[in-house]
Amino acid sequence: MELHVRLLDIDFGGKPLVFLNDSDADELNVNASERITIKGAKSKRNAIVSISSSTIQKGTIGITENLRKDLSLKQNSLVDVEIAPFPKSLAYIRNRLGGKKLLSKEIYEIVKDVVDANLNENEIAAFVTSLHLEKIDLDEATSLSKSMVKTGKILDVKKKIVVDKHSIGGVPGDKTTLLVVPIIAAAGYTIPKTSSRAITSTAGTADRAEVLMPVNIGMKKMLQVVKKCRGCIVWGGAIDLAPADDIFVQAEFSLHIDPLLLPSIMSKKKAVGATHLIVDIPTGRGTKMKTTGEADLLARDIVELAKRLQIHAHCVLTHGEQPIGNTVGPALEAKEALEVLMNKKDVPDLSNKACHLAGAVFEMVSKKDGFSVAKKILESGKAEEKLREIIKAQGGSPQITPEDIPIGRCTLNAKAEKSGQILWMENKVIVELGRAAGAPKDKGAGIYFNKKVGDSVENGEIIFTVYAEREYKLERVKAVLSSHLPLGIGQRTDMMIHKIKESPIVERTFTIDR
Amino acid sequence: MELHVRLLDIDFGGKPLVFLNDSDADELNVNASERITIKGAKSKRNAIVSISSSTIQKGTIGITENLRKDLSLKQNSLVDVEIAPFPKSLAYIRNRLGGKKLLSKEIYEIVKDVVDANLNENEIAAFVTSLHLEKIDLDEATSLSKSMVKTGKILDVKKKIVVDKHSIGGVPGDKTTLLVVPIIAAAGYTIPKTSSRAITSTAGTADRAEVLMPVNIGMKKMLQVVKKCRGCIVWGGAIDLAPADDIFVQAEFSLHIDPLLLPSIMSKKKAVGATHLIVDIPTGRGTKMKTTGEADLLARDIVELAKRLQIHAHCVLTHGEQPIGNTVGPALEAKEALEVLMNKKDVPDLSNKACHLAGAVFEMVSKKDGFSVAKKILESGKAEEKLREIIKAQGGSPQITPEDIPIGRCTLNAKAEKSGQILWMENKVIVELGRAAGAPKDKGAGIYFNKKVGDSVENGEIIFTVYAEREYKLERVKAVLSSHLPLGIGQRTDMMIHKIKESPIVERTFTIDR
Repeated sequence: MELHVRLLDIDFGGKPLVFLNDSDADELNVNASERITIKGAKSKRNAIVSISSSTIQKGTIGITENLRKDLSLKQNSLVDVEIAPFPKSLAYIRNRLGGKKLLSKEIYEIVKDVVDANLNENEIAAFVTSLHLEKIDLDEATSLSKSMVKTGKILDVKKKIVVDKHSIGGVPGDKTTLLVVPIIAAAGYTIPKTSSRAITSTAGTADRAEVLMPVNIGMKKMLQVVKKCRGCIVWGGAIDLAPADDIFVQAEFSLHIDPLLLPSIMSKKKAVGATHLIVDIPTGRGTKMKTTGEADLLARDIVELAKRLQIHAHCVLTHGEQPIGNTVGPALEAKEALEVLMNKKDVPDLSNKACHLAGAVFEMVSKKDGFSVAKKILESGKAEEKLREIIKAQGGSPQITPEDIPIGRCTLNAKAEKSGQILWMENKVIVELGRAAGAPKDKGAGIYFNKKVGDSVENGEIIFTVYAEREYKLERVKAVLSSHLPLGIGQRTDMMIHKIKESPIVERTFTIDR
Repeated sequence: MELHVRLLDIDFGGKPLVFLNDSDADELNVNASERITIKGAKSKRNAIVSISSSTIQKGTIGITENLRKDLSLKQNSLVDVEIAPFPKSLAYIRNRLGGKKLLSKEIYEIVKDVVDANLNENEIAAFVTSLHLEKIDLDEATSLSKSMVKTGKILDVKKKIVVDKHSIGGVPGDKTTLLVVPIIAAAGYTIPKTSSRAITSTAGTADRAEVLMPVNIGMKKMLQVVKKCRGCIVWGGAIDLAPADDIFVQAEFSLHIDPLLLPSIMSKKKAVGATHLIVDIPTGRGTKMKTTGEADLLARDIVELAKRLQIHAHCVLTHGEQPIGNTVGPALEAKEALEVLMNKKDVPDLSNKACHLAGAVFEMVSKKDGFSVAKKILESGKAEEKLREIIKAQGGSPQITPEDIPIGRCTLNAKAEKSGQILWMENKVIVELGRAAGAPKDKGAGIYFNKKVGDSVENGEIIFTVYAEREYKLERVKAVLSSHLPLGIGQRTDMMIHKIKESPIVERTFTIDR
């Protein structure tokens, strides 16, 4: 059937949507949310149908901006449109909703159709929900990981040992990667690190690293940097590794579910060719893994899944009940990491964590007492040197000093309203404060903590300072502070957590960032 | 935040979508698929955010056609926009994804936000999927039914006994309601029947009835008709009873799941004030309920759920492995029903089924031997008289004859390719044929069966005739026939069903029509 193009000049988050009049849809035998194939002059593409009889004339087809680009369509030109073949992947999703685990080739079809936009939002949401409710097993996780690798790009650094490091996430202020990568590369191992930007958190490693150097450098440049420095810290989004993941995250995010945690991590590690992987599992109240039992079970799955993908993986459980170091927010965190690498400042939990993680890598690839090896590299200044080498190779200024890093000029001091001890910190509220201040988009926004759990405070003492780039964002911070406590001051003998007087609306911590 | 309106002149299936530039979204602290509140001159409304930085300028907001209407917005005018309060209903959906059954007031919040479009497609799909995978229990079904009633309109016919009839659906050609309503009304009982149009089938009762009379008559007129005739057959979609259901159906349809079957039915019965309800459960291969065990369990839930809603319900299990009567498609079915009511034609399975269902109603409201009572009313011509009274009251022509009903002029005869017995009929393929021919939109499209299961056929004999309004639709019918068999001819001793040589793509029967 031939239809006249009506360009809508609107982009729908990259989704290939078209709008039809109902009588044309009827002629095509297609319902809303089903699929048609549009043939342009040079290429063809599937698209999801919306029916909009009040605004789309019979004989015309409404085309979104991304489709116009993909197919080089012109206003009022004729395109040939037909009903797309029924996607086999949808039959597989229906089977899974019927309680069946999926076979490897079925999962590949689904992932491929997710990437090719042959499945609509509703269908992807149902698939992800089914993976959550009827738990994915290791066979499915393996197939998902492999399919996600296969439907994206692959990096080949041509090395026998390729190291990678990953954190399950969930703890704010975790700038560990900025230390671990240069420590490992300084020791002579190859670590082509890709990182993500924040989705629900105050900063992703890519956001932090971007304060020091460009991270949006693409695959070709990444390969050059790794060849030269053995390590890099780049934004994974620019590399197009495992693109299915980003689409799944869109579905998971608002639902607060994350069944694709393992395939998401593993596919990205496999796509950079990792042979040895260390995974940090922050554990405890306010993180993703509330108990060591849960964390151990996750570790078991990680090690087994990695094995099936020919990756040698170890896990490290780390304390995650409060931020790592004293800072939260991209610029403050980059500054703190640089200060520790330069041995200008002592941030004991941060350097301890970095040395444990780098040390675990060293022990995997056969060095003994990895922690000491890592500590030595950090204290010797070799890690700082390596980071500066990487900064230079990625196009940043290798002479950068902590003072060069711009921090938001608007500040808000939070003072203790009584004397006592910091009894707890609430990651969730800290993240909310940081985001209210503008992080991660405003790189200079964030929080500096003078006190952490166990520290004594005097009434009136400044516990933390919030930094923002714009004054009005501090108003948002005040609003959060007026209803939520980021930390508790008291005596160790105060026993009550909170009272429940009526059916509460439960708001659990949820961080999709991995 | 104030933004300039950019009218997009596109309607998105009635969904209240707005498009923002990413920097404005960032200022508002809102992500894609989250919610904002737009204040128009007179009213305000929530909308779901899409982010479209390439096409939407900073400082402007893209407005869909339905929102423009709702808020009376003008091109380039200023609207005040702010982030909408977090919907509590989303927290409840998250709890259910966490394995918790929901409380009554939580379900009400969800249904309300579904109707008010405060939940996005992804969130509704996850909720529906969770109701399917972590089965809804009777408490939840009760709350859902009540909430769906509460969020829609309610009919009050001011009668002590209000009868209703419903079919679970799944069997093609089921024009029973066209007989049952006049039989019951002729007996002096009130039956304010609302029916649906076909979604996945060849005809809904509303489609069939529309061949005889207007069915899109609204609530006021419906009340008048019921007052005058005791019965009516109107399209439920025009009455706005339980509007949440239509939105849930959108999510269920493509996934082939139907967890809301019971609340959907019951809410509509409750909304018309039914006190006595008879539910037809077509049972057997090719229907929704494959076994009598399954059907009995469903009946148990129907009776119990109805009780909790103060409705007295009985169920009738009926044979559903082949079409009811000899016709499929709106006009052919309306014609057949009229012929049976006029005692012009003997269609034994149809009149038997209608008398069993009407008879079951009579027995509920205390008549004995209901079947005979119903049969007598049918044979006496009183049911025909009553239908003509209803046709007149709804605005149709009461003199209508079967010959007045236009049937598609393009025909295709399917002939037996061997002699034998009709061993089986496949409802799914029959529906596919009927829809390929143009049903339900082309009212004259459909199928007339000369033979049904158990009948003997000779090689070359016409088994069925397909009717279409347009010749090219018969090409579609041929395509279906070339790959799928609607019925099987053979000897009773032929034992093989089919062979499986490689992993099959399973396409189960699925009819969302209830």
